[in-house]
Order: sequence, then C-alpha cells, then structure tokens
Amino acid sequence: MQNEKIANKFGFFDEASGEYVITRPDTPTPWINYLGEGRYGGIISNTAGGYSFDRDPKNRRVTRYRYNAVPVDQPGRYVYLRDQESGVYWSPTWQPIPERKLQAYECRHGPGYTRITSRYRGIQCELTYFVPHTPAPNPSNKAEAACELWIMHLRNASRRQRLLRSFSYVEFSMWNAEADLNNLDWGQHVLHSRVEKGIIYVNTTFRPTTSFFASSLPPSGFDTERETFIGGYRDLSNPAVVETGTFNNSQSGRGNNVGVLCHEIRLGPGEEKEIIYILGVSEAVEQIAPLVAYYMQAENVRAAFTDQKAEWDNYLSKFQVETPDARMNAMLNVWNQVQCRATLFWSRFASAYETGLGRGMGTRDSAQDTLAVVQNAPERARQNLSTLWKLQFRDGHTWHQVFPLTGEGGAGLAAEYPEKPQWFCDDHLWLVLAVCAYLRETGDFSYLDERIPYADEGDDSVWGHMQRGVDFTLTHRGPQGLPRLGFSDWDDTMNLDHGSGKAESVMAAQQFCRVMLDLAELCDQLGMAEEGKQYRSLHGEMAGIINRVAWDGAWYARAFDDEGRPVGVQAEEYHQIGLNTQTWAVIGECAPEERARQAMGSAHERLNSPFGLALLAPAYTHGDMRIGGTTTYPPGAKENGGIFCHSNTWAIIAAARLGLNDLAYQYYQQINPMARGDHEVFKVEPYVYCGNICGREHPQFGYGRNSWLSGTASWTYVAGTQWILGIRPTYRGLKIAPVIPPSWKGFKARRIFRGVTYFIEVERAGSGNHASLSVDGVPIDGNVVPFPTKRTKEVNVVVVVS
Amino acid sequence: MQNEKIANKFGFFDEASGEYVITRPDTPTPWINYLGEGRYGGIISNTAGGYSFDRDPKNRRVTRYRYNAVPVDQPGRYVYLRDQESGVYWSPTWQPIPERKLQAYECRHGPGYTRITSRYRGIQCELTYFVPHTPAPNPSNKAEAACELWIMHLRNASRRQRLLRSFSYVEFSMWNAEADLNNLDWGQHVLHSRVEKGIIYVNTTFRPTTSFFASSLPPSGFDTERETFIGGYRDLSNPAVVETGTFNNSQSGRGNNVGVLCHEIRLGPGEEKEIIYILGVSEAVEQIAPLVAYYMQAENVRAAFTDQKAEWDNYLSKFQVETPDARMNAMLNVWNQVQCRATLFWSRFASAYETGLGRGMGTRDSAQDTLAVVQNAPERARQNLSTLWKLQFRDGHTWHQVFPLTGEGGAGLAAEYPEKPQWFCDDHLWLVLAVCAYLRETGDFSYLDERIPYADEGDDSVWGHMQRGVDFTLTHRGPQGLPRLGFSDWDDTMNLDHGSGKAESVMAAQQFCRVMLDLAELCDQLGMAEEGKQYRSLHGEMAGIINRVAWDGAWYARAFDDEGRPVGVQAEEYHQIGLNTQTWAVIGECAPEERARQAMGSAHERLNSPFGLALLAPAYTHGDMRIGGTTTYPPGAKENGGIFCHSNTWAIIAAARLGLNDLAYQYYQQINPMARGDHEVFKVEPYVYCGNICGREHPQFGYGRNSWLSGTASWTYVAGTQWILGIRPTYRGLKIAPVIPPSWKGFKARRIFRGVTYFIEVERAGSGNHASLSVDGVPIDGNVVPFPTKRTKEVNVVVVVS
Repeated sequence: MQNEKIANKFGFFDEASGEYVITRPDTPTPWINYLGEGRYGGIISNTAGGYSFDRDPKNRRVTRYRYNAVPVDQPGRYVYLRDQESGVYWSPTWQPIPERKLQAYECRHGPGYTRITSRYRGIQCELTYFVPHTPAPNPSNKAEAACELWIMHLRNASRRQRLLRSFSYVEFSMWNAEADLNNLDWGQHVLHSRVEKGIIYVNTTFRPTTSFFASSLPPSGFDTERETFIGGYRDLSNPAVVETGTFNNSQSGRGNNVGVLCHEIRLGPGEEKEIIYILGVSEAVEQIAPLVAYYMQAENVRAAFTDQKAEWDNYLSKFQVETPDARMNAMLNVWNQVQCRATLFWSRFASAYETGLGRGMGTRDSAQDTLAVVQNAPERARQNLSTLWKLQFRDGHTWHQVFPLTGEGGAGLAAEYPEKPQWFCDDHLWLVLAVCAYLRETGDFSYLDERIPYADEGDDSVWGHMQRGVDFTLTHRGPQGLPRLGFSDWDDTMNLDHGSGKAESVMAAQQFCRVMLDLAELCDQLGMAEEGKQYRSLHGEMAGIINRVAWDGAWYARAFDDEGRPVGVQAEEYHQIGLNTQTWAVIGECAPEERARQAMGSAHERLNSPFGLALLAPAYTHGDMRIGGTTTYPPGAKENGGIFCHSNTWAIIAAARLGLNDLAYQYYQQINPMARGDHEVFKVEPYVYCGNICGREHPQFGYGRNSWLSGTASWTYVAGTQWILGIRPTYRGLKIAPVIPPSWKGFKARRIFRGVTYFIEVERAGSGNHASLSVDGVPIDGNVVPFPTKRTKEVNVVVVVS
Repeated sequence: MQNEKIANKFGFFDEASGEYVITRPDTPTPWINYLGEGRYGGIISNTAGGYSFDRDPKNRRVTRYRYNAVPVDQPGRYVYLRDQESGVYWSPTWQPIPERKLQAYECRHGPGYTRITSRYRGIQCELTYFVPHTPAPNPSNKAEAACELWIMHLRNASRRQRLLRSFSYVEFSMWNAEADLNNLDWGQHVLHSRVEKGIIYVNTTFRPTTSFFASSLPPSGFDTERETFIGGYRDLSNPAVVETGTFNNSQSGRGNNVGVLCHEIRLGPGEEKEIIYILGVSEAVEQIAPLVAYYMQAENVRAAFTDQKAEWDNYLSKFQVETPDARMNAMLNVWNQVQCRATLFWSRFASAYETGLGRGMGTRDSAQDTLAVVQNAPERARQNLSTLWKLQFRDGHTWHQVFPLTGEGGAGLAAEYPEKPQWFCDDHLWLVLAVCAYLRETGDFSYLDERIPYADEGDDSVWGHMQRGVDFTLTHRGPQGLPRLGFSDWDDTMNLDHGSGKAESVMAAQQFCRVMLDLAELCDQLGMAEEGKQYRSLHGEMAGIINRVAWDGAWYARAFDDEGRPVGVQAEEYHQIGLNTQTWAVIGECAPEERARQAMGSAHERLNSPFGLALLAPAYTHGDMRIGGTTTYPPGAKENGGIFCHSNTWAIIAAARLGLNDLAYQYYQQINPMARGDHEVFKVEPYVYCGNICGREHPQFGYGRNSWLSGTASWTYVAGTQWILGIRPTYRGLKIAPVIPPSWKGFKARRIFRGVTYFIEVERAGSGNHASLSVDGVPIDGNVVPFPTKRTKEVNVVVVVS
C-alpha cells in the first residue's frame, strides 16, 4: 500500500518531498497554493496565476487578479522569455500564453512555496515563488516592508549560444481592492509609478503604502504602463512589448500600473543564470531600497528559502503518522496540516473562490480553524481566539465576522436582512469549544484569566466571556426550551426566524450539550466540582428536551420554524432528514445509544453517496422563504442537499464515537481528495479539502467547489488524528483510543504533546476497538498515557487493539 | 465651412444621417453608444462590447461586462461566423477576435442604435442593434418583458456557394451585478439555463426575473455553459465550439451561463439572409415566448426600428441650428442632445467608466441633467425632478443620491466619512434652479402645487420644497454668513469641514444668489411682488457678504476652511485660484461689473489652455487632509487642476453674460470633442463630451476621461443654445440675445417653444451684441419675442446683430 503512487491524470503526490506535483498545466480548475501568512501573502496557481496582499486582501491589496473572468486565472506572477534571434516568445509558467505548448512542464506545490519548471526550445526555466518566513534584518528595527521572492533559474540546454530577453509581469492594484475594481474614475487617476535605480515604486500622492518590484540583476529596461506594455486590443498572450522585444521605459502617470522589468540574458551551451525578483509593499518607503538590496544577494534568498522550509518541516513534524493508507498519510502528514494553517491565517477571505473582498474572518469559522492547530501553533491559536472574544457583546452573543486589519466586526450575511435577528445561535458556542480544545492541548490555564474587552463595553476574563456565551444560549430559548435560532445556526442559509423569535435549532441544542460536557470536564480539572455538576445537569436538561421534542421516530429533527413546525422530519416534503442533528446527537452525547445508532443508520441510508453524505434529503426544488437561503440553491448544490464536507467530518467522529470503525473510515475516505482519481468530474485540487461537492440530486454529481478555505480542514484533521487514529489530548495525558478499520494491521505515529514526543505503535490483534497500552514497555490501565516526569522528553507507547 | 468633413483618424461625422461613423475598429478607447433608456438599456462599443440591464445596472443586470480588464471591452453582443469549408472563423464586429483583420469595417452610432458592417472572405455582414422604443403589443396588457434586438444581415459577395455556421455569444449576469462579480460561492451555484423551442431561459429557482435569448430562425444547436463553449484555457478569441464548428447543446446547471445559438446558413453567390436575435428579461416568464414570436417576424422588427428612429427624429427636431461652425451644428443638432438624453436616463450610473455598481442617480447631477431636455422631454424632466424632491428632508437638505429601481436614497461619498457632515450644500439649490428652468420652458406652473413627500416625514407642494431648500441654506451659514460647506459643494472632493461646522463655500453663496434671482423672477411672474422683493434683498445681502469677505484682489476665493482660512487665494501655495467662483460670480450676478471682468480675466490668464480651463491652479502636489479628496489626485488630474469640462461650460455662459463673444466661443470650441483631431492624445469619443481632461500640469495633458455621463452635456447645450446663440425661454416669451463671434455672418435656427415653431434667422451687421428683432416682418422692441396668439403655430424671427 505505502508505495502505491497517489496519482491522477494531472499529477501526483511526491511522498519523499511532501510536494504535490502537477504534471500538466491544463488542470480543470486552477490548482492553487498559498504563499506567506499573517503579514504578506497571496495565492498562486499551478500556472502562476494569483495575487498578493498585505494582511487583508480587501484593504491592502498589492496585485490584481480577475476572478471568474475570460481568460481564466489571470493575471499572476509572470515572466515572459523571448529568443532574440527568432523573436519567438513564451511563458515558462504556460499561462498567460496557453497556446504555446511547452516541451516540459511541472509544478510543485510545497508548504509555503511553489516551483514551476519548464523547457521550451532548449531553454530550461525553474521559477520558485515564496514569502520569507522571517523578515529581513532591518537597520531601523521597524520591519514595515514585506515582500515575496521569485527565483528564476535559467539553463541553456541547447547546443548553441542563446540571447534571450525576459519581461516580468505583475499588475498592481490600489490598496483598496473594491475601489480598484469599481471606482475607475478615482482609481485610474491616482495610482502611478516611478522607477528609480531599477526599482519600480507604485503609489498615490497621499497614501503611505508603496508597492514595489525589483530584481537582483540591473534591468535593461522597464515598463509600468499596462496599455503601453500590452498594446491596443492585445492581451497577455501577445503583449506588444514582448512581441517586438522592445521596452519603452514607461513610467505610468495614471491608469493601470504594471511591473515589467526586462533583462537581456546571454547563455552559452549548458550555461545557467539566475534572476531574483522582489515584489512587496511598505508604509516606510525608505525601507524599500535596503530590503531590495538585501534580497539582491542570492545567498540571502537561499537562506530565506531554507529558513521557511525548516520552519514548515518543524511545524509538520509535531504529528506524523504511518498508516496502511498512503492517502491518509499524505493528508495528515502534509496537506491537511498545510490547509489548516491556511484557514488559521486567512479564514474564508481569499482563495480561488473567495474574492478577498467580502468576508473577512468569521467568528464561527475562525474558532473552528484553531481546533487543528493548537498543537502546532498554540500562540497563534490563542491570539486568534482573543481576537474573536473581542467580538463578543456583554450579553454573550458575538459579531459574526471581523476584518482582520481594522478589527471591525459585523453581522455578516444577517446584515443583508435587517428584519431578521442579527445574531447567530452558534458563534459563541464554537468559541467555548475552541478554548477547551486549546486548554486540553496546552494546559495553558492562565488563558482563562486573560482580560479581553467586550464589543460594546467593559471587559472580562476569558472564563467570564465563556460564561456569557453559555448565558446567552440559556436566556435565548424558544417555546420548547431549545436554543432560539437567531439568524441561523451553523447552517447560514437556514433562516427560519422571520421576526417571531420562536424558531429553534436542534443542532445548537446538541452543540450546547457538547459545550456543557467540555465545561464540566474543565471544571473537574480546575477543581470546581460544583460548577461541573451544574454543567452536567444543564447537559441532562437540554438532552432531555431534545429527546422529548426532536426525535422523529428514526432520526432527530433539524430545527423548528417560526410556528413550531419541525424541519428535517418525515412529514416534510423536502428536507425530511438533515445530517447534522444525527452526528451532533452523538458528539453532544445527548442521544441514548440506541437512538444514536438508529439516527446514524438513517443518515447513512438516506444521505450517503460515494462522494460523501448529503447535508439533507430530499433537496428543495423551488424557492421557499419559510426556509430561506438554502432554497435559493438548485437541488444537490451546497446547503440544499449538496455534500458539505464539513458536515461529513462530524459523521466520521460520530461513527468513531459509536465504535463503527468501518463506517468512520469509509466516511473519511469518501471525502479524501487524494482518494479521488476522477478529476474531470471533481475538478478541484486533489491535495486539499473542498467546502462542498455537488450531491446526487445535482447534474454535476461529484463536482467539487470552494477548495482550501473550509472548516473541513480542521475537523477532518481532528477526525483523522483524534477519532480514527484516536490520539487525543486530555487534561490527564494523551489518550489513545483508535477506531481503525479491521483490515488495518496497525499504524505508527509520532506526536508531540506538551513538549514530549510520543512514539506510538499500534498493532491490531482483533477486529474490535479495545486498546491495551504499554508505556515505555510497562502496561498501564486505561487508554490515557499519563504525563511523564519533567525530564522525560520521549515516550514510547505500544498499543494493542483487539 | 459647412461642407468641411468633421473627421479624425478613426472616423467622421456623417452630416446627412447624423451618425458618427467609425472607420477603423481599433479606437484608442472603446467608443460607445447607448441602446434603450428608462426601462431596458445598455451600452455598446464600436466593436459590440458592452452589456444590458433592466432599469438599474446594479440590481437588474442582464448581461456581463468586464470593466478595465484584459482583454479590453469584453464581452459584448457577439456573433461568430465560421466558413464550414475552410474552418476559418471570424467576428464581423472585429472583437472578440482582434487578430483577424477584417477586409472592411464600419461602425455607425446613431441615436439609440448602432450598426456595424464588415466584410471578410467574401461575406458581408451588417449587424444592427437597438431597443424598441414602444413595447411590443402584449395580450395580457402587462408588458413585463423587455428586450433588445439585433438584426444580422448576411450577403455572399463571393462567386461561389458558401456554407456558414453562426454562433451568437452573450454572457448572462445574475440580476445582482455585485454578487455576480464577488459572491462566486453563491452566484456560481444558483444561475442556470434551460432551452425550450429555441429560446434560452436563464434564471434561478427563486428569483422571478428570467433572462432570455432567441432568434428568428430555428437554431441548429446551442450552448449555454460558458466553459463548454470556450473550452479549457481558451478565450473569446478562440472558443472551442467555434473552432471545431460543433455545438454541444449544453444546458448549464450552474456556473457561467451564456447565450450561444448556432445557425447553419447556405448562401449562393449574391444571396442574402437575415437572422434576428432577441435578448431580454422578464418577470413574467409566460410573456417571453409571445414576445419572441412577435419579433421573429421581420416586418415587426423593421417597424420597431422605424418607430424608434422616428421618435428620435422628432425629439431632435425641437431645436435645429445652422451656424457657420459645422462642429457646433453636429453637437447641437444631434450628439449633444443624444448625450443629454443619456444623462437624463442614466445619470452617472453606467458607462464605459461608471461600472453600474456604485452611484445610482445623483441629486445634484440629475437636477442639472434636466436643464437641457426641458424642451424635448418635459414630462420626463418633471418626473425626474419629482423623484429627486422625494429625497429632500423637512429641514431642506436632500439625500445626495438615489437608486432608481428601489428609490432608496443615500449620502453618497459622504457616507464613507461618517465623521464629516452628511449633507452637501448645493444639492437642494440645483433642484430649485432646475424647477425654474422647467417652468420657463413649459409654463407648467401647476407643477408648483404637486405634493411630494419628504424623505423623513410629511409632504409638501413643490413650492414648499423649494422654500425648504432656501431655508436650509439660510439657516446653515458659517461664521462669515456664507453657506456652510457641509461635506462639500459642487466639488465633491473639497472637504474642508472636519467637524467644526465652520467651513464655508463661496461657490454655494454665488449659486444661492442665482437661486434668489430665479425665484424673484418667478415671483414676478406669479404676481408675488412681496416675495420677489424679499428674494432680491436676500440676493443683495449674500452678494454683499461675498464681495466683502471673498474678494482676493483680482478674483474671488473659492471657500473657507474650518479655521476661516481661505482656499483659492494668492496667499495659498497651491490652488491660488479656482475657476468656479469666477464664473459663478457672473452667473449669480453678484460681482460688480469691473470685478466680474477682472475675475474672468484672472481665470483666463491663470487657468486657460488649448483644451480648456483648469479647475484650479497651481495643483496640489501632495495629499493634504485639510483640503480632502482633491489632493488624492496627482497634479492636473480631475478636481486637482484638471480640466473639468462641466466648469468650462459655466465659463462660456459667464463670458457670454459679460458680452465677451470671442471668449465665449473660444471656451465653447476648446471643449467641443468634434473639434479635436488628436485622438491619439484625447482618446475618448469625438461625438460626446467627456467629464474631464488632464490639465497642463499632468504628463498626459489633453487626455479625456469619463465620456458620456457628465453634467457637461446639459450645461454645454444650455451654453451653446441659450448663451452663444442666445435663444432663451423666458416667462414672457422667447428671448433672442446672441453673443456670437464677430466673424460669423449669422446663423439660422428652428426652435419649438410651448408648441410654436420659431424660425430664427440671425444676421450680423456689426461686431457687437446688440440684437434688433423683427417678428413675422414686424420690428419689435427689446429682444423677447412675445407669445403669439393661440392659433399661431409658426413664427418667423429675423434678428440683426450689430
């Protein structure tokens, strides 16, 4: 199994390097990667399409990208090459000249970098793109300038002397990406360029931010005016300047600003040359030239690349597994972690589908995004959680979203419907769950004492904030005692409350149950027995209500509308069953064993497909304002009966919790993109999870959408590592409770937990899920490896599952 | 002079047809025209680029357009032709295959229609685009369906039998153009197509609007899925379907929806064929098929074209002139009127520069837009004024903008700066001026009694609304007694009030003076002597303040900032002189004669250039938050010392008012786009005014921007007809007071005024501006032709100017 190549028609996973290798450029959709994070970053496709920004793609855009346009996936980070003898020109990244057939092409997406290599007419070219992880040394000690680096390595593989000209191309945006797109009257007048000592500076007369573009070799010439570079009624596949080979040294006084640096390159047979391009932005214009000078030195660039690679290696090393399933290994060891880190930093803000204009960071989303990174990036997770707590109001509800650069919160989608409740019943609950996960992983209980302001007034400790969240749910309950729905629960598009305040969410009730148990467990740990008891009693009370009002005979109802009519029940014409209330009945530990199994069985029978479980069935066939947004989608798409991968992860966990090891693994495999080979249908990246897949009721069944930025990332990681492999952090130590398929012989894992490395070896001795543990050769009772003594840095655990 | 051809490198004005003829497709910018108005409409370029919408380009978009993208000016209303023998394909509108060199090309923009003719490889093609002016007969008597028509006329000019396939192409948008662009997660899932009996229907499961596309001949096949039609990594210059000649009959279940209908066309030598395309939108889906059936009949389409042409001929005929200046004739008789009607209907909402997303209709803009159409479209002018009065609050100020479909008002640009005043000091004043102009033209004094609600509460007569406007200015005055600036006056980007409430506008004071005189004159007419006296006294008071505090020695200051420091004065480093307070000193009749002449002389000396007068000088060279938005522009661009054509029209009027006939005419000619021959520099359409031209301080001096939708349209028309030709409606009759250049021998005009046609013949007998009038052969005193008796429908006026 392990040596089987994970491949499809367009590429393969390279187990040795962890890179995903794309072997032909014409992927069904642009297959992207992320460069940078936190500060400067961007997206890059397998043909170098994409754009960059500084912290916030809406308010600090650096370069442009034309979403969903024709031609697709343009512009990007391009370099044109032109043979000066023949006049033939091409792009070594294929785009933006797709009609030119490259003689060799390969794109390697690695964590934080992308390398595209190609050959055309005897010229080999390797372009490596990355953002330095550590800022360059800065004499002013105020590193405002941030940048990305492109290393272009050329080799003359022909037998004769060659004379080439290269022309770089990036298209600059105003910092305000929305105005750049829509306010042409202003934007087109104010942005302008100047070129000094080979550096292109792009800014306006009043805005402090200056974007820049430079290269390690002195350019022969340049152009910064898009229209001059491209020429009238031409496009990026045949720019006039490249076609003629002659630059104009245009300094754009207005209009569209581009970064074109031209170099003349002479290469003898077998000779190699390198040009480094430096693209970035700064508020301190005087820092630009020193930064450029630093990265003009090849050794500094090489060191920066090594540094960012080492940082990622270290990051990934905190959890490594070796299972019989190479596709699972590929995800858990590399790409699922890469994706989780992307969601940690960019939430749902900028991807090939999210245009970087609208969403900012979501409270619900970003809280969940921390779940899978608490072991790798606990400081950042804590920081994100604190940012989100600032969105909470004194009454306990929170803003639904926040713009990271400005800290400005908002009601998100609800703001478009001012007549509906402006709060979501789940946002604050996710935050409580995320804090508990953070504490289990880190033991950093001091976090509970951190004081954080409320969005309206006053401040409180994190513990206080958590209580307010619980209070909000307790004090906002509907006629049956379930949590009121508000604008919606997790399912943004299920908008049942039209002003009555009576619609109720069963899912939020189950989620509340999980919160109660997590808090009770935390209280036990903190020695707060009384509070723990109270939480358990609240759990029991809410579970009682759920089981009394929401059980529909063979599964749980999804919600109750304005008039008390249930949704997600047999009696409905559409949406007779919803997935989330079956899985959360198990996760919230609020279903009696028998009901739990029956609910999950119903879900399996009515919702499962080879590509995953649908969110609901049957799908709505027409718009219905009783239900809201869901019904705007055609049947089988997104929330209207599509396969929501995020919800599938909860099915994995629920199945594992019930000990259904085959089923848990089946659900895991169904949505693993590495396990899909049909990329003509699936279309999206095979190395990261997508948000949703068209369901059986949709004509494009199996088609994936919205890859990268999805809650699926964190939750599959949790499902895979903590519930299938069963390696779970607890307050008492590392729990190991695998629910692996009967066919597996076992697996090995290396897990760093609170500074100690656990070498875990699991062997299967029977088909069940009973785990017997030996720690450093000594059998222990139960399945929790207790914390070792302070000096111990490595622990060997052997687990026999029978 | 008259027979001189008005031409430039890219086209000419065809005096016989009134069409502007573009003779080569590669114009420096897309040269556009408007189709339709009021209800269904859109823009179309000389190579068929552009898009359509129903009333509101933001909320009822029908097709897509990619602003400022690469390739430029795509998509549009295309038909591909393919020779089935050779496989060669081309676009008879040149775009979207600009690399194909057509053997003949001509685009004729006429009022409300565009016709593009071309020849390629022996196939002649004529494509005529228009929107029927009168809705098609509708049995349900509820004409919800609206559409545009394309007539494609093909002729085989070769000597052999030919077999062609044609493929139409339009790209459908969601009704919500902003979501279409930015919310890909939703938009890409919900819009879908179905094809029934040759009609493509595009809609969502819940939205009532359905867009449609059909043709007069039954199609051989179709495609509605953009990706299928174009193919992977291709673009509109080489779509896979056209390249292979094979359609797929794709019915798009999601994603990008296009309208591709394929026809097979056999043409013997010399043979001709016609296909009519019908593109539209409806809320009543059942009306679509009957509408399509109606326009499948060629005779109905021909009748509709004749009808809309006749409507325009009648519209234009209300004022026709014959002056020695063919360029002035071309503008006044055709294109300036066409442009005014475009601004009347679309304000600043949708053009090649205004993206149809942001602005809606402006109160200030739309009020001024009525000025030039009161004689041609008085009902629509009245309707627009009433719409705008609804934006007024009880205290007298108004919303700055309104979205026409929803009637929703807003503070416009000010809303982006909540810390600044949310009102503009000029909006309400323009409305009063516009009502007075409407009354002078129509004598429809009953309008003053129409009751119109306020934006906040209650209602009032139009007269009452006008009073509230006056009151607002009177009660919102600064420390010196001048009107407070609010967010700004006419110059949106001059934002001097940072919360103190003390900044003052000299221009608004002068505008207020004009309002006082217009109201006084109206009171005279209405027999309200006392009120008239009061307005004259307010005029005197305000004029006194202006002359006391704003005279800077040789011109008037532009405004006063927060701290009472003047702007637009000698003592400033930048903006030592502004144009508007010199021209409005004259227009507002608030400057003593000597100061008026001196102010205009200073403006001429310091601001004039061959391309017009700059708005201010010297321009700001850096951002200055004291001044605000102006300083975000580089020197010489837009409000920062650019040539604002709108302001130039006031200079024409002011010069004419002062009797400076040469100067008035010079200012008129300087900005007349027909008089520019340097379109490599000017770049924009030669047949309509542009909003602004880069000034002398800008590296692109002479470059025009933001053509079509500009207040320049109405005001140059007023300046040309009422102040140079001097034909002005008054309450007492038609005034004729020409201020024509001394070199002119005279001019002739036909003017319909209150139902009577005036044939005016002006002869010059001396170099001055004294006019002696004979009416139907009888000399009269003064220069106002009194109203004739009721039966008289034609009046001959001979004017001798000496």
